[in-house]
Amino acid sequence: MTARPRGKATGPCPIGRAVGVIGERWTLLILRNATLGTTRFEAFRSELGIADNILSDRLARMVEAGLLARVPYTEGRRVRHEYRLTDAGAGVLPVLHALAAWGEEHTRAGESSPSMRVVHRPCGHATGPGGPRATCDHCGQPIRRDDELWVRPWRSPDPIPLAQPFPWKSR
Amino acid sequence: MTARPRGKATGPCPIGRAVGVIGERWTLLILRNATLGTTRFEAFRSELGIADNILSDRLARMVEAGLLARVPYTEGRRVRHEYRLTDAGAGVLPVLHALAAWGEEHTRAGESSPSMRVVHRPCGHATGPGGPRATCDHCGQPIRRDDELWVRPWRSPDPIPLAQPFPWKSR
Repeated sequence: MTARPRGKATGPCPIGRAVGVIGERWTLLILRNATLGTTRFEAFRSELGIADNILSDRLARMVEAGLLARVPYTEGRRVRHEYRLTDAGAGVLPVLHALAAWGEEHTRAGESSPSMRVVHRPCGHATGPGGPRATCDHCGQPIRRDDELWVRPWRSPDPIPLAQPFPWKSR
Repeated sequence: MTARPRGKATGPCPIGRAVGVIGERWTLLILRNATLGTTRFEAFRSELGIADNILSDRLARMVEAGLLARVPYTEGRRVRHEYRLTDAGAGVLPVLHALAAWGEEHTRAGESSPSMRVVHRPCGHATGPGGPRATCDHCGQPIRRDDELWVRPWRSPDPIPLAQPFPWKSR
């Protein structure tokens, strides 16, 4: 799926177009958490500490831009909606990798917390510090999305598989 | 140089910290143009079409965050200042690469304009479409910053060398 251009998301420069769609604080944080499996309004709200009206606005814009798909589900007898990454939303992963690497190198955690790591499921090895990588530091193979696990030790020691784009691809 | 954390640029998640410093539309566009060699207020203003007060605010924040160095120069008898990338500002390059690749894949130029390309100076070959790469598509070697040229054909056919971080590294 291709994100429909909106606002400044047109023009000849691909960086300018990308910034017009995803170059915004809450949008990037929502994409990070969606990549880690968050799909529901209440979960984004509590994880991000974001005000209801801002979250509503950003989710609506992200659906319009083709980053998220709004998908119905039933809870008891009520129909509700959750937000799943599209191919364009899932395609932000290399941007998140680059942000993680920059954040590791150029900002400080402000507390002694172990760094985020990426585990390559087939070989079981974690990347060194410096953020996620496109290829495994250990075996050198490209890390496929469904073989990539993130360890965020300040939350949990358990590796987290990345959300797959909707509709779920067969493996 | 390490960007001094400000605002939300602390916490255990390196993506969250990076987003707190560089996850903003104008900041990313200023970093793009600074990477292409822009250093002066008036040049940023005319290239980006940004209001004076917003540009002043962003440049001041970026200096405070350690992304740009404010460096005096003389123009006639007046002392003025220009803005040069620090190591932290120059280190955003992989984020710009990832944004370019995402923009190429998931947004449309809206006009039939040739894509941005990266030329690897030592071997002289350009990357294919899909945005800048960390390694050369042709020779497979890592592309060093001072061997990386960007071609933005909607502006000029001439390859543009990337700005080096301040103070200039000896080659």
